Amino acid sequence: MKLHTYFRSSASYRVRIALQLKGLPYESVPVHLVRGEQKAQAYAAHVGDALVPALVTDEGHWLTQSMAIIEYLDETHAETPLLPGDALGRAHVRALAQMVACEIHPLNNLRVLKYLVHKVGVSDEVKTEWYAHWARSGLEAFERQLALLDAERQVAGLPASLFCWGGTPTLAECCLIPQIYNAQRFNINLDGLPRLMGVMERCNALPAFQQAHPSTCPDAE
Amino acid sequence: MKLHTYFRSSASYRVRIALQLKGLPYESVPVHLVRGEQKAQAYAAHVGDALVPALVTDEGHWLTQSMAIIEYLDETHAETPLLPGDALGRAHVRALAQMVACEIHPLNNLRVLKYLVHKVGVSDEVKTEWYAHWARSGLEAFERQLALLDAERQVAGLPASLFCWGGTPTLAECCLIPQIYNAQRFNINLDGLPRLMGVMERCNALPAFQQAHPSTCPDAE
Repeated sequence: MKLHTYFRSSASYRVRIALQLKGLPYESVPVHLVRGEQKAQAYAAHVGDALVPALVTDEGHWLTQSMAIIEYLDETHAETPLLPGDALGRAHVRALAQMVACEIHPLNNLRVLKYLVHKVGVSDEVKTEWYAHWARSGLEAFERQLALLDAERQVAGLPASLFCWGGTPTLAECCLIPQIYNAQRFNINLDGLPRLMGVMERCNALPAFQQAHPSTCPDAE
Repeated sequence: MKLHTYFRSSASYRVRIALQLKGLPYESVPVHLVRGEQKAQAYAAHVGDALVPALVTDEGHWLTQSMAIIEYLDETHAETPLLPGDALGRAHVRALAQMVACEIHPLNNLRVLKYLVHKVGVSDEVKTEWYAHWARSGLEAFERQLALLDAERQVAGLPASLFCWGGTPTLAECCLIPQIYNAQRFNINLDGLPRLMGVMERCNALPAFQQAHPSTCPDAE
């Protein structure tokens, strides 16, 4: 498999974590977002939205959108499942992943910040406030959701979660950890998020998360 | 089941389509977004991000995030599947859904437009351009992706798609149709998107899509 990736892209980082957690070997193909390489014909001809990541399977199929890629990897490789075995657990894990991928990250990625600066003409200060608002409020919502899920597990007599839902990292952590990394890079205050910080510490202690980290990528700067 | 919904919310509309396609009866619980009812304690106590929709299952579980809810409905009710039977098809359909739910809708929903106006202080003209930019460029990307998928089907010897992928509506249409409705409400130019328009016409001819339409909701204004 070939993963078209950019070291700092949160969405690429999600798929790198999934590949590492599942122990799947892959070749990295760097696509430099700041230089606009994703818009080059050789790439954009295969990817409708010309975003990273894209995974090319061994059969030559181009797959796009990070959460869809991770579910594909999980469905085609049974070992180390990234989604729970029951429908309710899967619904909770997917919802957590989507809280990051649909509510936080879309507002704070490079193309949106660029549009704010170059088209809307906002100051650096307004851009920083914009980033902080969506990142902080989104992570607070995630923290509240983890508390709600903990309460649900207690009522159901399930053991307390070590990760977002249950005892192992899932699709939710694949999305959450890159978002926290991103927030830290933008100096977002992460106080008062104890469940999130606990999950982050447990993830970052695992080799899979270390090996997927932007700083270890071949295209890291 | 109870669906907490707002008639004009795209994300609620997605789940209404899924419920109708699958023929599942449900009770509507209106949550008036413009009046801020989603922030009322009775709702927010169950939903970490205080967004709509939320589905309460017959067992009393609160499920959030529209795509996660739709996958749950699909996994727990086999009739009229909303995802293809093979992993590659599912990856393509989920990616299309995420092109809407992660790239277009998050930038153009009510809370973001409100923030632009009240916090960033943009003019109506800049807000309109912002909406149009993300809606139009996102739908163009979707159109290109449909063309790429059509080409892939041809190579694989599969029949041409009548809908986004294959011969029946899927999770992709659940996300696409509300986004087109939204774009029409904001007077976005939809010229030059023949595949999208074909899918839309075929969907809107189906009773399930008609019954899920905002204008038919009990809370429609």
